[in-house]
Amino acid sequence: MLATYMYGAGDVRVENVPDPVIQQPTDAIVRMVRACVCGSDLHPYHSMPASSQGTPMGHELIAVVEEIGADVRTLKPGDFVIAPFAFQDNTCVFCREGFQTSCIHGGWYGSVETGGLQATLARIPLADGSLVKVPDVDPTTADEGLLASLLALSDVYLTGHHAAHMGQVEPGKTVTVIGDGAVGLSAVLASRQLGAERIILMGRHVDRTHLGREFGATDVVAARGADGVAQVMDLTDGEGSHIVLEAVGLMPAYQQAYGIVRPGGIISRVGVPQYEEAPIGFGSLFGRNARLAGGPAPVRAYLEDAIPLVLSGRADPGRVFDRTVPLAQVASGYAAMDAREALKVMVTM
Amino acid sequence: MLATYMYGAGDVRVENVPDPVIQQPTDAIVRMVRACVCGSDLHPYHSMPASSQGTPMGHELIAVVEEIGADVRTLKPGDFVIAPFAFQDNTCVFCREGFQTSCIHGGWYGSVETGGLQATLARIPLADGSLVKVPDVDPTTADEGLLASLLALSDVYLTGHHAAHMGQVEPGKTVTVIGDGAVGLSAVLASRQLGAERIILMGRHVDRTHLGREFGATDVVAARGADGVAQVMDLTDGEGSHIVLEAVGLMPAYQQAYGIVRPGGIISRVGVPQYEEAPIGFGSLFGRNARLAGGPAPVRAYLEDAIPLVLSGRADPGRVFDRTVPLAQVASGYAAMDAREALKVMVTM
Repeated sequence: MLATYMYGAGDVRVENVPDPVIQQPTDAIVRMVRACVCGSDLHPYHSMPASSQGTPMGHELIAVVEEIGADVRTLKPGDFVIAPFAFQDNTCVFCREGFQTSCIHGGWYGSVETGGLQATLARIPLADGSLVKVPDVDPTTADEGLLASLLALSDVYLTGHHAAHMGQVEPGKTVTVIGDGAVGLSAVLASRQLGAERIILMGRHVDRTHLGREFGATDVVAARGADGVAQVMDLTDGEGSHIVLEAVGLMPAYQQAYGIVRPGGIISRVGVPQYEEAPIGFGSLFGRNARLAGGPAPVRAYLEDAIPLVLSGRADPGRVFDRTVPLAQVASGYAAMDAREALKVMVTM
Repeated sequence: MLATYMYGAGDVRVENVPDPVIQQPTDAIVRMVRACVCGSDLHPYHSMPASSQGTPMGHELIAVVEEIGADVRTLKPGDFVIAPFAFQDNTCVFCREGFQTSCIHGGWYGSVETGGLQATLARIPLADGSLVKVPDVDPTTADEGLLASLLALSDVYLTGHHAAHMGQVEPGKTVTVIGDGAVGLSAVLASRQLGAERIILMGRHVDRTHLGREFGATDVVAARGADGVAQVMDLTDGEGSHIVLEAVGLMPAYQQAYGIVRPGGIISRVGVPQYEEAPIGFGSLFGRNARLAGGPAPVRAYLEDAIPLVLSGRADPGRVFDRTVPLAQVASGYAAMDAREALKVMVTM
């Protein structure tokens, strides 16, 4: 089969490798229908040291079950499924509390043991917890837009939703979304779904902020840094934003976030922080009782509610995909996203 | 009248100064019944550079209204009142949202303009918003314990309550309180009032943790640093604490907090941070979806509900006071708290 590996910054290769096999009785083997390239894949694409051993890539997938282990109870071969970007048993104490990305027995795709999901076939650990069946859809005949929206539920849309959920977005609130990448736009759409009154999108790529407006942004601020902060403060009558959804992960985005958050407001981060230390003292968060939330989205917690939203057409998160490449040419998809020629790249067989 | 000033680290003086006068029609002049020394006063007591101009001290007070400005509507001379540690109009947008310490027109006691509250008389700005009347209590005949508990509502108890409130303490949760000072012990009592199932108190002063147990702590951990973290993790079956209330403000306490917080849990800080930058990235908060909350307590938001709690005897937060000094000798109170001979010092006329 084909599988994707990164060997260093800018060096993505698709290779012929042996098919994965069931290793544990709770495993399933699935066959890719669509995968995609994640904004977070661009971090190693920029900075990964060269290595003679490739790192398996990909963590977003819709697929058909090919084979199940002896202990798998909720799935059978032929089922059309969504794989959240982390695997989990969905039964441990942290899963039950809704934080499946901290599952005691779970983990991340992209290690030598579990492999990546930008691949023809994939081994899914803890399949009962890690795959969710999509009812009544035949992926061989389904509409492309529907497939795109279902694929978006494996990570990007529900990461945006997680930001909004942890930010406690609700009717009447002003939300500012920092970042016009696919997660930022998803956070706009999720905020609209949760009833935000006003959604300010901070981003400077006009084609992206245009989609952001269609997703529900009421205002767009292209400026960044102190100018961007000043414009958001002006838009909010000097009061600041109840909720700030930070979908970038870089320090300047975090600095913008605490620059515009209102007293008692919430900064919810879903951009993976490319820093460890940051200001949280009296001058940034504490003095204003500003709160900080967010982390890796427990997609599994939200997936069962989100599938009907997509199937019924009430949300179309798949619109973030603006380019499609076959798996064999996935490297061109990384390059296009890195060059900002593509917002988010879908991968087909 | 007498008023307290700090001239530098360790240098607290009580001086004879002119009585304050009404400056704005919204001011009131109040006469001290009881004041006290705050743990946060110890930070400048340790580090304030020597100055020829004294800084007015004190921000916790129960008092009797002496005189009101022409626009004061809710108070009259002779009323017995509690003064929250910040002043506020209690009508601006942030006050209405429950964050009165961010009041647009409010501020802190202890500046040259507003003076401090460790004084015979004090000018209270925005008196209608900044003073809350205690009904049906005559301070000249009231029980000393009741006066102590009412005084505790001006800051220390409701700061502990704020920690617990922002930490979303509720029945069934495990709470760990870091710090056995008066705020930490207040956070224990507040957590019990809010129904926490288990309350772990981290502190190493046996007389204080003894009071903590009487306030509701179910476990005490005397160890600090990595040992303390390990002991709390053991007590919570390796899962960590749903809620961590950080009542110290120093970096090691914050490090303990993120060491023991559970995935998806909340760290709520009310110790004034003596740092600006701190770890919040993948390895500390983000990876586990741990949340951060807290700040200067909007005492005013909680005061009207708390007064009946004290008057009815359902809570006795005044037990944190273990020494009383007359105003003229307040310097000895600072010294006793600094030497940890006293937990919290009450000041009488």
